[in-house]
Amino acid sequence: MDFFFKPESIALIGATKNQLKGGNSILKNLIRGFKGGIYPVNPKYNQIENLPCYPSVTKIPDPVDIAIIFVPGQYVFQMVKECAEKGIKGVIIESSGFAESGKEGKNMQNELASFADRAGIRMWGPNCMGIVDIVNKKIFSFVSHAIWDELIPGDVSLIVQSGMLSGAFLMDTMSHQTMGISKVCSIGNKMDVDECEILEYLIRDRETKVIGLYLESINNGRKFMEICSNSAKPIVLLKGGKSERGAMAAMGHTASMAGNNAVIKGAMAQAGVIEAGDFQQMMDICRSLAAYPEIHSSEKGRIAVLTYTGGAGIVSSDFIDGMDIELATLSSSSKEMLETVFPEWMPVANPIDLWPAVERNGAEKAYGTAIKAVCNDPEVDGIFIHAFSGGFALNLDLEALAVEAKKAGKPLFCWLLGQRDSAFDFQIRCNKAGIPVFREIYRAVECMDALFARKRIVNKHKNRKEPQKHSEHELFASERIEHKPYKDEQASLHVMDEYISKQMLSKIAVPVAEEYIAASIKEAGSAALKLGFPVVMKGLIPNMVHKTEAGVVKLNINSEKEVETEFINLEKIMENKGKILIQQQLKADVELIVGLVQDPQFGPCVMLGMGGVMAEILNDAVFGIAPLSRPQALELIQRLKSQKLLNGFRGAKSADREKIADILVKIGQLGFENPKIREIDINPLIITNGKPVAVDASIVELEKPL
Amino acid sequence: MDFFFKPESIALIGATKNQLKGGNSILKNLIRGFKGGIYPVNPKYNQIENLPCYPSVTKIPDPVDIAIIFVPGQYVFQMVKECAEKGIKGVIIESSGFAESGKEGKNMQNELASFADRAGIRMWGPNCMGIVDIVNKKIFSFVSHAIWDELIPGDVSLIVQSGMLSGAFLMDTMSHQTMGISKVCSIGNKMDVDECEILEYLIRDRETKVIGLYLESINNGRKFMEICSNSAKPIVLLKGGKSERGAMAAMGHTASMAGNNAVIKGAMAQAGVIEAGDFQQMMDICRSLAAYPEIHSSEKGRIAVLTYTGGAGIVSSDFIDGMDIELATLSSSSKEMLETVFPEWMPVANPIDLWPAVERNGAEKAYGTAIKAVCNDPEVDGIFIHAFSGGFALNLDLEALAVEAKKAGKPLFCWLLGQRDSAFDFQIRCNKAGIPVFREIYRAVECMDALFARKRIVNKHKNRKEPQKHSEHELFASERIEHKPYKDEQASLHVMDEYISKQMLSKIAVPVAEEYIAASIKEAGSAALKLGFPVVMKGLIPNMVHKTEAGVVKLNINSEKEVETEFINLEKIMENKGKILIQQQLKADVELIVGLVQDPQFGPCVMLGMGGVMAEILNDAVFGIAPLSRPQALELIQRLKSQKLLNGFRGAKSADREKIADILVKIGQLGFENPKIREIDINPLIITNGKPVAVDASIVELEKPL
Repeated sequence: MDFFFKPESIALIGATKNQLKGGNSILKNLIRGFKGGIYPVNPKYNQIENLPCYPSVTKIPDPVDIAIIFVPGQYVFQMVKECAEKGIKGVIIESSGFAESGKEGKNMQNELASFADRAGIRMWGPNCMGIVDIVNKKIFSFVSHAIWDELIPGDVSLIVQSGMLSGAFLMDTMSHQTMGISKVCSIGNKMDVDECEILEYLIRDRETKVIGLYLESINNGRKFMEICSNSAKPIVLLKGGKSERGAMAAMGHTASMAGNNAVIKGAMAQAGVIEAGDFQQMMDICRSLAAYPEIHSSEKGRIAVLTYTGGAGIVSSDFIDGMDIELATLSSSSKEMLETVFPEWMPVANPIDLWPAVERNGAEKAYGTAIKAVCNDPEVDGIFIHAFSGGFALNLDLEALAVEAKKAGKPLFCWLLGQRDSAFDFQIRCNKAGIPVFREIYRAVECMDALFARKRIVNKHKNRKEPQKHSEHELFASERIEHKPYKDEQASLHVMDEYISKQMLSKIAVPVAEEYIAASIKEAGSAALKLGFPVVMKGLIPNMVHKTEAGVVKLNINSEKEVETEFINLEKIMENKGKILIQQQLKADVELIVGLVQDPQFGPCVMLGMGGVMAEILNDAVFGIAPLSRPQALELIQRLKSQKLLNGFRGAKSADREKIADILVKIGQLGFENPKIREIDINPLIITNGKPVAVDASIVELEKPL
Repeated sequence: MDFFFKPESIALIGATKNQLKGGNSILKNLIRGFKGGIYPVNPKYNQIENLPCYPSVTKIPDPVDIAIIFVPGQYVFQMVKECAEKGIKGVIIESSGFAESGKEGKNMQNELASFADRAGIRMWGPNCMGIVDIVNKKIFSFVSHAIWDELIPGDVSLIVQSGMLSGAFLMDTMSHQTMGISKVCSIGNKMDVDECEILEYLIRDRETKVIGLYLESINNGRKFMEICSNSAKPIVLLKGGKSERGAMAAMGHTASMAGNNAVIKGAMAQAGVIEAGDFQQMMDICRSLAAYPEIHSSEKGRIAVLTYTGGAGIVSSDFIDGMDIELATLSSSSKEMLETVFPEWMPVANPIDLWPAVERNGAEKAYGTAIKAVCNDPEVDGIFIHAFSGGFALNLDLEALAVEAKKAGKPLFCWLLGQRDSAFDFQIRCNKAGIPVFREIYRAVECMDALFARKRIVNKHKNRKEPQKHSEHELFASERIEHKPYKDEQASLHVMDEYISKQMLSKIAVPVAEEYIAASIKEAGSAALKLGFPVVMKGLIPNMVHKTEAGVVKLNINSEKEVETEFINLEKIMENKGKILIQQQLKADVELIVGLVQDPQFGPCVMLGMGGVMAEILNDAVFGIAPLSRPQALELIQRLKSQKLLNGFRGAKSADREKIADILVKIGQLGFENPKIREIDINPLIITNGKPVAVDASIVELEKPL
């Protein structure tokens, strides 16, 4: 990818003198910042902006690394051909009119893709805004020249599937001096170069500390996960098209498949990716993570709040309480230190209301003492200061506060109110001092929460690295199967019956309820005696899924006599077509559902959910991408909302999480190694006396091997 | 209250020449804006800021309406005495050092309160920042003089229990021109004048359209609800101290009881109050409601999104989908109209991505056509436009858009990105045009959601007004009972046993399970026969609450023989001390809990929750303030999360909501009319065959009548 980011020479196909056109903006942006050779291409001109202009790339006398193409869609193919002829390594196609514009455009895009593949030329886009590299002043984009007014280099890079983020939004971010940015890569229809390749590049990029992504689709879910899992840099994802209507909109937008949000959510959690919901929020989380790549305090996230107003302290506490971080309980030594600046009548507590201390000692001393106290306090992991700028005396020695926190290795966050100009200056000072600053309490708390969530991910990663040799990485690395969409194969799907499904599960050592097929009343009777009463009897009819509704499930059978009656009864219902199953009846303390599905973006995924009545009421189901390592399986269990039900609810024995994890691992492996298995459904997997047992199951596979 | 807001003359006790002190700020603020008589009081000076200064209020030659007191706490009492002597109607005590500062301060405050009561002088504060009236330029506060730089009059008024909101936050809001403000009333410890009185004043105030409150405590919950219920103006509440830690912090802050959040939440929903979580968010909701006091479109909130960027359209859709509003489905006529500006290849859908239309027709025409289309579309209730200002050609005729939307009676919201200065100008234009503008998509969507939520409240109110004469208002108006805190009476609490409790419920026509007390085995046997098997037998021991745990509940008793065995068994367990109850055994489709509690702030409250296993897992319980009208009771049921369980879950009959509502109304009335009933607990109230039946209950009352 290096030639895209660090070309020595660039041809601009579609350069123009018309100031209102993008082809002019790109040229001006190149001239302003790019130090290499710039070759405008347009048969209409001999010269643009004092540079010689060529009728075709093939006529450029010098070697050219990449070309930016910005001509109407129908001419793009010819231009790419000429680029290939010229020996250009890569083209950035910023023109639109491809897959996003309907059938014709889609065909055009496909032709282009297959040509590029044959010719060995790499393509970025189309329908994109190219690259904006703020650190190196390389703007390969038709973004307005106004962006040059205030470029702030930083260490957050973005990969975005919406030009807005490298245009309008970027200008907003720069001019408001919200944060610095390293690179913004607008990938558009990503027909060749996609998020995975750029992600890999940015993970290696020394100028990038944190990567934010706005994606409407993920081309290769598994590869994306593999890269994220192995990234030492934090990755924040805003996935557009989570809701049904949003997904519909996304499909029109950049011609992408939006995907099943529950699966994506599970996949991202598994890969250690932090999810965001809104654009500014994504940026806020990114800059917070970039500010504190390392935290030396504990992952608990015990926060000390230093405020000049009780009300904001209270609201901060309310927000902290609702997240995975907590309000610190100050140690006695930090209380003593704070008492030196507090009035006597005022008890010291967290949130630390410094106003009376400010009135007595001035803001510098009050805040200075407080930050020393909490920096030395082993019970404090992070610090949240409230500041005001302009209008009254709350002048903080911000830089000293930052130094103090840095020494202690504790993240410092700031909530800021103030007069517009004064607050803006203060914000810039905060940015320079490396303190993330926010205008809303909730957002600040949310970002602190994300920071400690990241810390937990990193710790988990560290702890796992050594003992778990066969961790997710190797499994992922070995995985290069193409996942054919489920739909295409639907014609030849075969549903195995309950008995055969459980036999198959039993083979991979998933515990199943003891059961027998009975060909006669006699066999049924002796099976029942072997199992012990009460037993369950079920009629199995080929391809029938809803047994209960069909009236072929009989519970609480307590005698040989009842076995006989039900046997006759079931034979009648099934018109002698099916098999009869006798099964031990187990008491379920909890009912779970374990399944395997084939996701179009992520391939085989393991599903774990609450079963029974709870399934419909709680809507509590989580997904993991198969295969799962044991720690991943344990984490999947941990992600269920209904933890209470698993922890020995109402006197029941606690569910054996190791045993459940074992099943999840095995189901994942089975589905992963056998692509012809399209679906596994263990429903319910009951927890009886703490142990999981599969009571009913069905496996769906393709009839003919792939 | 008029004399506080519209005094003709003000004495300032604690006026000073020292520019660093609040007493100087208050004076300067008075001089700058207040048109009436200003009388500085301080024995140290003859003159301050060119005004004669008096040694005492009693020495002022003219009549004085109110006094602002800003002297150290210990001198306040003497000053108030002199004010009373002078015949001053009200004092605003801005000094701190009272209840918020510990025991001594609390005593001081109590003495002050009882003096004021005797002397008939009204008191505002202490520990507050008084009144800021921006419309009339009356600033009775020590807020920094810098606030005068940019006062924006508006129609949102605030009542706040934190000086920050009328100081730092207000300066922030004004200088960022976020919105206009009418009055900010900082009430501090509210020892006399409280939120209720000011709320009543502001509801009558012609200069106020929407009222926002930040409260850490609510002094008189019922009165507050009564006022809010009857308010034609929207009321938005940010309640600080919702979490346990937040509540602890609030108690220290302004010496307030933070209260049970679940009860407050229920009370506010019942009173039609909109709750906010953060300060800026509260203001954003307030200004949105003020912008659109009336909406002519339907309460469904079907939103059309007009965007220049597909990505933002998708994210908007995702957010809309997660709330109670929805993404509009455009009618064919508006699609046709949009097609006139859309390129041919592009299908028209909502979110409406206008970028290609902007490129072809310019922004004015593209947006102009789009707004006409959606304004005429009967399937659209609200409009969300995305705007950009500065840097590229997206010049909207904002004012024309506003006029169009106004004509149609549809609210128009705007999400804005842009270059800092240009976006600031655009924001000001939006404010002038009456369009709420936001920098984050989520917040804009959240505010649209609040607007339509308010619309639903108003509609409900309208629909109810006529037919329901005995509505909440009269009930509230009749209610002036003092609610003694539960704790004080604990010594003499009496727990009625299950049988007596249900007898009492039966008297008010709450359906209870059929049951008998049996004095002998014979009586037990005939009771069982009367009830029909299976039956339940329970041992009732005085003051025992946890019967199941004590082993005195026997289910599934199927014969006279078993009745006999269990009778002997129970007598043994109870050591012949209790009563034995025989009860019909009913099948529970759903288990609910219905209760009554006495809340320290709100008095008798009805609780409704999911019972059984669900109670602990779902944590689904809602509160209503008694007495409940029937529609209020039905709404309470509607507020449960587990609606599915009530709607004929898994083949069960749907729960009879009218019958459940009936019970809620009756329980509320019972608790409301009998203050000595401290607690009612019907657990479970089962739903059997659609009908609610109380299966177990206990009532706790005070032994001696009040």
